[in-house]
Amino acid sequence: MGDKLKGLVILGSTGSIGVQTLDVIKSQGDHFYVVGLGAGFNVELIERQLAEWKPKLFSCQSPEAAMYLSAKYGIQHVTQEELVSHPDASLVMAASVGAAGLKPILAAIENGKPIALANKEPLVIAGDIVTGLAKDRGVDILPVDSEPSAIWQCLRGEDKEISKVIITASGGAFRGRTFDELTDASPEEALNHPTWGMGRKITIDSATLMNKAFEVIEAHWLFGVPWENIEVVVHPQSIIHAMVEFVDGSVKAQLSTPDMRLPIQHALSYPNRIPSDYIPTFNPVSVGSLTFEELDSRNFPCFGLALEAGKKGGSYPVVVNAANEVAVQLFLDKRIKFTDIPLLINDVLSSHHQSYDLSPEEILEIDEYSRDSSFQWYRKTIR
Amino acid sequence: MGDKLKGLVILGSTGSIGVQTLDVIKSQGDHFYVVGLGAGFNVELIERQLAEWKPKLFSCQSPEAAMYLSAKYGIQHVTQEELVSHPDASLVMAASVGAAGLKPILAAIENGKPIALANKEPLVIAGDIVTGLAKDRGVDILPVDSEPSAIWQCLRGEDKEISKVIITASGGAFRGRTFDELTDASPEEALNHPTWGMGRKITIDSATLMNKAFEVIEAHWLFGVPWENIEVVVHPQSIIHAMVEFVDGSVKAQLSTPDMRLPIQHALSYPNRIPSDYIPTFNPVSVGSLTFEELDSRNFPCFGLALEAGKKGGSYPVVVNAANEVAVQLFLDKRIKFTDIPLLINDVLSSHHQSYDLSPEEILEIDEYSRDSSFQWYRKTIR
Repeated sequence: MGDKLKGLVILGSTGSIGVQTLDVIKSQGDHFYVVGLGAGFNVELIERQLAEWKPKLFSCQSPEAAMYLSAKYGIQHVTQEELVSHPDASLVMAASVGAAGLKPILAAIENGKPIALANKEPLVIAGDIVTGLAKDRGVDILPVDSEPSAIWQCLRGEDKEISKVIITASGGAFRGRTFDELTDASPEEALNHPTWGMGRKITIDSATLMNKAFEVIEAHWLFGVPWENIEVVVHPQSIIHAMVEFVDGSVKAQLSTPDMRLPIQHALSYPNRIPSDYIPTFNPVSVGSLTFEELDSRNFPCFGLALEAGKKGGSYPVVVNAANEVAVQLFLDKRIKFTDIPLLINDVLSSHHQSYDLSPEEILEIDEYSRDSSFQWYRKTIR
Repeated sequence: MGDKLKGLVILGSTGSIGVQTLDVIKSQGDHFYVVGLGAGFNVELIERQLAEWKPKLFSCQSPEAAMYLSAKYGIQHVTQEELVSHPDASLVMAASVGAAGLKPILAAIENGKPIALANKEPLVIAGDIVTGLAKDRGVDILPVDSEPSAIWQCLRGEDKEISKVIITASGGAFRGRTFDELTDASPEEALNHPTWGMGRKITIDSATLMNKAFEVIEAHWLFGVPWENIEVVVHPQSIIHAMVEFVDGSVKAQLSTPDMRLPIQHALSYPNRIPSDYIPTFNPVSVGSLTFEELDSRNFPCFGLALEAGKKGGSYPVVVNAANEVAVQLFLDKRIKFTDIPLLINDVLSSHHQSYDLSPEEILEIDEYSRDSSFQWYRKTIR
């Protein structure tokens, strides 16, 4: 109240984070309003969102739907690049899934728009470009993912003299299982996340621990923490989202119930915090116990594959990410096994010739090429 | 390194915090040196400290020892007030025990010296005076006690939009016991603290939970948090020392192994942090589990007695603190039972006529009077 209303553009408005972002805006109408919505192919949901939110602009990947919806609701249809650069947008929520988010994110930064970043793959494949451009343009990248949001919160007011960042992992749907036990794991089982309600892609990435490697890469680029100072620890309750250890040995942690609306709201309201009665608060006595165990990277090889690729940099993480996006989709479509995911990624990565100092266009070419290689692997190996 | 060496005066140098402060200074000789030491009646230890540290000044409560030591070591003996106001002192570590610390703390603040505050009783009995004077003089009060230090660290960079402060309690030596079971508890049992190595007075205060009420009062005065927004939760591992909940429901916590040298060093080095390889760091996997339970104020009535007195303010907390100091000493001397401690305090408090708007002198008069009443209670009730 009293603050100026923030006009928001949401990329990926029909995804899990997009929908929850609209939930937050509905609960916090004194603070935010919707300038524009960007969606993919979920025409039914984008239509309902346009009817409800009546934004100034929208974007949608299906040209037919775009024409139909624009005519029916009298809302201007634009490209993603036009969407993120509209003068009324004071913040862009980047909540698309996968590498596809890279170009609109770069366009938003070019146009000086702060980014609430939920879409981690662009940082995985082009972390140096995204963070470098943001620095050049003086644009804030505000993490939405709960773990980097936790790191960010712990670093507020004290972002030097850090000895270590500890990212927690729920362990995903298959914590405690061995690789061999997971041969017949179904998409339904993998999608049954123990603590978080998230989109399908990220929930599978949680089950493979790919997501956790991506978060390490994300933390490296967002906060400039050296690789050797980032650790991961399994914390099944998902209450502590990350910790920062300072050089004197003191640790700060950020805690909250596992509800994405909190880090979403925090990114939207930053630098302020606003009351959020609609989100259940953390009660230590009700929770009773917070436990920690080592990450099992032996039985979940995606973690090591992705982390090594991230450290090598250049085209490596681009290939891993593309192969993973394809593998996850093939698994969800029941065309490959859960344990084929790391096999596919590993094989595609092995046959790849590394390259460095890539432009965004080159990155997207390698992304495309790696997707093709991944489908070829599938046709050759499985079918 | 590169920083100017900080000259320190330590009040209570022979107590537990004083000795650990000298440990820290020994490990961090590039950052700190000893200007002056203030002790009570532990002549043997102050002599060893003078021989080792060769400070410019010292103070000691025994006039004979003062004369003898001053002559033997050629070190100037001064009053506590002179000690804390010496021009070379850039920080005063206030680590005396009990209400006796009030006057030298006020003298230090009057002289513009930042205070590293380990001695909580002065804040309990005169919180408004101490914090008011510090504000007037623009002097920092830097908490040393682990729980207020944790709150302070959580508030660095973000000290607004707070909804709640949660102080953790180990539960002391007698967690899980009933009042009746504690009738025959010995000083040896009460001094056997499960997680912290501390002085005798504070360890008994931990066993009665008096210490936890004092910390609530301390937090109220140090950070201006309303009474109703301060909670206490039992956390037997003593790893999380306090948490701050912000209005959006996000919680920050400070964690570290239970080692007083860390909050001591933090107060000394503030606003910087310096590496401290001599303090074991927190390893979540080794610790395994952090648990929480409700504070049992029914079986530990000192908690409620002191907290109510703190909220009422004026002479109430002065009386509670004085009666408690006497009761703890009588218990350590095996003259009263563990369960007599709250009975003594309650009776002395009941017969007291409350007064408000007290000067430091009036507070110390009430302190004296309450000690007399406490001894009278002992002579009448027990002997």
